[in-house]
Amino acid sequence: MEKKALLYEGKAKKVYMTDEENKLIVSYKDDATAFNGAKKGVIEAKGIVNNRLSNYFMKMLETKGIPTHFIEELNDRETVVEKVTIIPLEVIVRNFAAGSLSKRLGLEEGTRLNKTVLEYSYKNDELGDPMINDYHIFALDIATKEELDMIEAYAFRINEALTAHLEEVNIELIDFKVEFGKTSKGQIILADEISPDTCRFWDAITNKKLDKDRFRRNLGDVEDAYQEVMNRLLVHDN
Amino acid sequence: MEKKALLYEGKAKKVYMTDEENKLIVSYKDDATAFNGAKKGVIEAKGIVNNRLSNYFMKMLETKGIPTHFIEELNDRETVVEKVTIIPLEVIVRNFAAGSLSKRLGLEEGTRLNKTVLEYSYKNDELGDPMINDYHIFALDIATKEELDMIEAYAFRINEALTAHLEEVNIELIDFKVEFGKTSKGQIILADEISPDTCRFWDAITNKKLDKDRFRRNLGDVEDAYQEVMNRLLVHDN
Ligand SMILES: Nc1ncnc2c1ncn2[C@@H]1O[C@H](COP(=O)(O)OP(=O)(O)O)[C@@H](O)[C@H]1O
Ligand SMILES: Nc1ncnc2c1ncn2[C@@H]1O[C@H](COP(=O)(O)OP(=O)(O)O)[C@@H](O)[C@H]1O
Ligand SMILES: [Mg+2]
Ligand SMILES: [Mg+2]
Repeated sequence: MEKKALLYEGKAKKVYMTDEENKLIVSYKDDATAFNGAKKGVIEAKGIVNNRLSNYFMKMLETKGIPTHFIEELNDRETVVEKVTIIPLEVIVRNFAAGSLSKRLGLEEGTRLNKTVLEYSYKNDELGDPMINDYHIFALDIATKEELDMIEAYAFRINEALTAHLEEVNIELIDFKVEFGKTSKGQIILADEISPDTCRFWDAITNKKLDKDRFRRNLGDVEDAYQEVMNRLLVHDN
Repeated sequence: MEKKALLYEGKAKKVYMTDEENKLIVSYKDDATAFNGAKKGVIEAKGIVNNRLSNYFMKMLETKGIPTHFIEELNDRETVVEKVTIIPLEVIVRNFAAGSLSKRLGLEEGTRLNKTVLEYSYKNDELGDPMINDYHIFALDIATKEELDMIEAYAFRINEALTAHLEEVNIELIDFKVEFGKTSKGQIILADEISPDTCRFWDAITNKKLDKDRFRRNLGDVEDAYQEVMNRLLVHDN
């Protein structure tokens, strides 16, 4: 597998072309951003943790029948993934109120939701990733009804699998964001990453935040928190 | 029908109890507010126009099989309606981009939407009537899936009926907001009002705004615009 030209550089990852048409190499950075890029910083070794954790979760999800872009971990920070056309949606699943949902609905952070909540944000930095609904998605031609049904079903199944898996290491899955993409064959698969950058993880006993909120809110112990999630999951498995 | 105690006073109407358990008298005011009450003013004779227009639209919708709270117009400003428990949702239907949707999606006002858009706002002044989706509605126990399906179906049928009716008097229905309520027997019916306060009406030839945007944006000719809508519809019918 040969790494070729940089395809794009995002806020947390660089994406490279390879000598194979349908494969990309993703390279995880330590850069951290929040509030649509307004807050910037570095979380030491974050790229290593997120690369390993994201691959770990995707491999686990594959065993549950969720198709993902994961192909092969190359090294600490780099992974070969299937190239997709990203569907410009942040698919958010919430088990407990936190962050923007707490503000929107006036619910205290940590309130368990009676029903699991799914939300879409339009992945569009200029517009500030606004929340949108199914009808907006159809009007913007972002996805069809059939595609959205599939995305929703996957998102709920991912939630169930992750929640159960994290419970075993005493981590409560508060909420998370995933992205899906379409392969060259038109199949919808899970892409991007699953990591403390894209999930809210709370220690199930102490409620200590083990995720990017420590960076967003200047809570300290940021590196330790990322490391802690990795240790619990990888030690647990070996 | 005897008017009894004031039940509540909203931003545009007063609602009175009557000597009949399941009937209320709604009294339309000339008061106008915008931006969640931040802008306040008076639109001369608005109460008269809105009372007559709202009753006119509701009677028309009844003939199309949409159940409404309308019972009897008492005088210029007052109408007897069926008492309901309001479902705290602003049900918004959009044929063209305008207002908050233009901002949210970055679409120029007046852009025709490929697909009709339906949106919900949570009717909650403290939270600023935030946009919410079906899952938020279920998590907040605002309505069940069955109730929401019915509300959506009614909202789309109201859109079709209003659009066709307004076309005949050269008015383009850009978007509108409706509220539904539950009767003592548990039936879901259209409540509140349909008027230039709650719809965007554009002259189909000149695109002149004939609605509350004239007040919101200080465009002048506010009273004339309200009167114009009433004249076109009521003259047309006689
Ligand atoms: N399998 C894939 N194929 C193509 N693009 C992908 C794939 N997985 C993730 N991406 C995209 O790579 C980009 C870089 O990631 P990231 O740094 O997280 O970007 P962002 O700044 O948008 O959060 C994102 O736009 C993401 O959607
Ligand atoms: N048939 C009805 N039964 C009970 N309440 C109603 C009915 N129709 C409308 N309402 C309610 O009457 C209140 C007064 O109306 P309005 O002045 O428009 O209030 P708002 O300030 O909430 O816009 C609103 O809360 C509205 O939901
Ligand atoms: Mg990203
Ligand atoms: Mg009102």
